Amino acid sequence: MQFSSQLLESAVAAFSKLPGIGKKTALRLVLHLLKQDAAEVAQFGETITRVRAEIRFCKNCHNISDNDTCAICGNPMRKQTMICVVETIRDVIAIESTQQYNGTYHVLGGVISPLDGVGPDQLYIDSLIERVRKEGTEEVIFALSPTIQGDTTIYYIQKKLQGLPVRVTTIARGISFGGELEYADEMTLARSLQNRLPVESYVSSR
Amino acid sequence: MQFSSQLLESAVAAFSKLPGIGKKTALRLVLHLLKQDAAEVAQFGETITRVRAEIRFCKNCHNISDNDTCAICGNPMRKQTMICVVETIRDVIAIESTQQYNGTYHVLGGVISPLDGVGPDQLYIDSLIERVRKEGTEEVIFALSPTIQGDTTIYYIQKKLQGLPVRVTTIARGISFGGELEYADEMTLARSLQNRLPVESYVSSR
Repeated sequence: MQFSSQLLESAVAAFSKLPGIGKKTALRLVLHLLKQDAAEVAQFGETITRVRAEIRFCKNCHNISDNDTCAICGNPMRKQTMICVVETIRDVIAIESTQQYNGTYHVLGGVISPLDGVGPDQLYIDSLIERVRKEGTEEVIFALSPTIQGDTTIYYIQKKLQGLPVRVTTIARGISFGGELEYADEMTLARSLQNRLPVESYVSSR
Repeated sequence: MQFSSQLLESAVAAFSKLPGIGKKTALRLVLHLLKQDAAEVAQFGETITRVRAEIRFCKNCHNISDNDTCAICGNPMRKQTMICVVETIRDVIAIESTQQYNGTYHVLGGVISPLDGVGPDQLYIDSLIERVRKEGTEEVIFALSPTIQGDTTIYYIQKKLQGLPVRVTTIARGISFGGELEYADEMTLARSLQNRLPVESYVSSR
């Protein structure tokens, strides 16, 4: 693309570095910003700079945070003896959005995947074991991807937790709510048969 | 969505105001920025603020510009007696990218469309007539959308230009290069038959 303005060119270049945004979309976004209120756009620019410069990660659970400890770890209303182990910050946001969980989290930063060069040392596994030991954790709930890598990670951490007085569980896997049986893959269908629930508990949980 | 960080929340809110970007995409973009170099992100933030605050529009052709007059209007190497009339800045960029045009532009800011409340007074039509009068323009080329509104605009401006010693043309309309005849709409096909070209001129223009 040929631009008649250096400023426009650099703004388009900056936007098109974002994932999933090509040059044409970047141009559309910049031309949109040009039509907005100058003060609002200045605010947007500042927010971007600030979010990168000031955001921190909770030293306890590695979740995103404005301070040293995140709002969830520091909340006495939440059950501090229950830890939900997730891969990424995005998973924390997804679970929080259900408004059904009242414990704390632990963000691993990924799952064990030797093919991608991710071993246990690249993840926050040691700090999880440390937390369980120190905080008198009663339950560790795994909410990892239902993949071989996710299962390997669960198996590895569970081994490490052996001997500690903690209950280890994983979120239920089965047919999605609203999903159609005939389109479910065999693995999901097979597991969901193995882990069948008594109808009473299914009805009461709705 | 529930966020554990105020900063993250405001950054996601800012991104999701952009056209075509929802909350989930906004979150993905912000999390991407968090993984980038802080100086680079600060630069991105500054570019956004600057592009809105400093960018100007050429007082001659209304194209986007870093100065009072754009780089195209100020370029003595370009044919200043030829004006290509387009709707938006995006069209200027599209035509410039072909590297086939060496005249100047005039950005109307849209086309006449009474249903959308756009009349001739909302567009830069008067300044175009003024330019043709003052600059001794030899040719005005219309490169507007092939719609009723585009055609109306061409008709309106052409009427206004009558009596001035200027050649008025429009870009060719026909079957797109690589397009399939059977999928072309009747209007395009009909016009393209009416405006058929001698084969010599077609071959020499390739």
